[in-house]
Amino acid sequence: MATIFTRIVQGEIPCYKVAESEKFFAFLDINPLAKGHTLVIPKAEGDYIFDIENADYAEYMLFVKKVALALKKAVPCKRVGVAVLGMEVPHTHVHLVPMNSEGDMSFTKEKLRFSPEEMAEVAATIAANM
Amino acid sequence: MATIFTRIVQGEIPCYKVAESEKFFAFLDINPLAKGHTLVIPKAEGDYIFDIENADYAEYMLFVKKVALALKKAVPCKRVGVAVLGMEVPHTHVHLVPMNSEGDMSFTKEKLRFSPEEMAEVAATIAANM
Repeated sequence: MATIFTRIVQGEIPCYKVAESEKFFAFLDINPLAKGHTLVIPKAEGDYIFDIENADYAEYMLFVKKVALALKKAVPCKRVGVAVLGMEVPHTHVHLVPMNSEGDMSFTKEKLRFSPEEMAEVAATIAANM
Repeated sequence: MATIFTRIVQGEIPCYKVAESEKFFAFLDINPLAKGHTLVIPKAEGDYIFDIENADYAEYMLFVKKVALALKKAVPCKRVGVAVLGMEVPHTHVHLVPMNSEGDMSFTKEKLRFSPEEMAEVAATIAANM
């Protein structure tokens, strides 16, 4: 069965899309740690980032960088933090989180909620900076 | 002034070394979230990972992968988690943390303590798997 992320890529499940290339896709985390919290995924399914072969992995990391640079332009922050945990959805995803303090990256804290309008606006602003 | 990580690379400050290449260096985090928690750094100083130019950045990410694969062989875990926060030491560092649950990557939890003998042993085991 397709992962929830594959269904997002295929448009079966809606998302706030940030960026897309032939092999990769980026969209807002629906349970964000900060405004602009983005997930960057390979379109190819796979559970563990370090199982990706070197050429695709390097290309993926460069796509992550490109999204992170756009995110930092779009959302005021000190830096964009990176996390790969992957215990919940079995489809590799890199979290990019606009950070102003170390606590902004605490995955155990309560998630934030933004209105659909706010989510759409921040996604469009990041996309415009790609 | 040299960063604390540069002083570690230069051997002025001791560490439990895991791996080294011409451009990169890996050693155990002295305040680990889990046994085997490793920091992977570029030898070149720089405060923000996404300021690294593409070729060096891709090479760095591939070195991170190599260390992560060795770490997973050395320390029993479900997967190796990745985090880049960087609010404390102004020298880019990727955290690699052996994970068994999502909480293992919580940077706000109390850090673990291992004896010097345990730290030396885990560093040697990871190094042997490189």
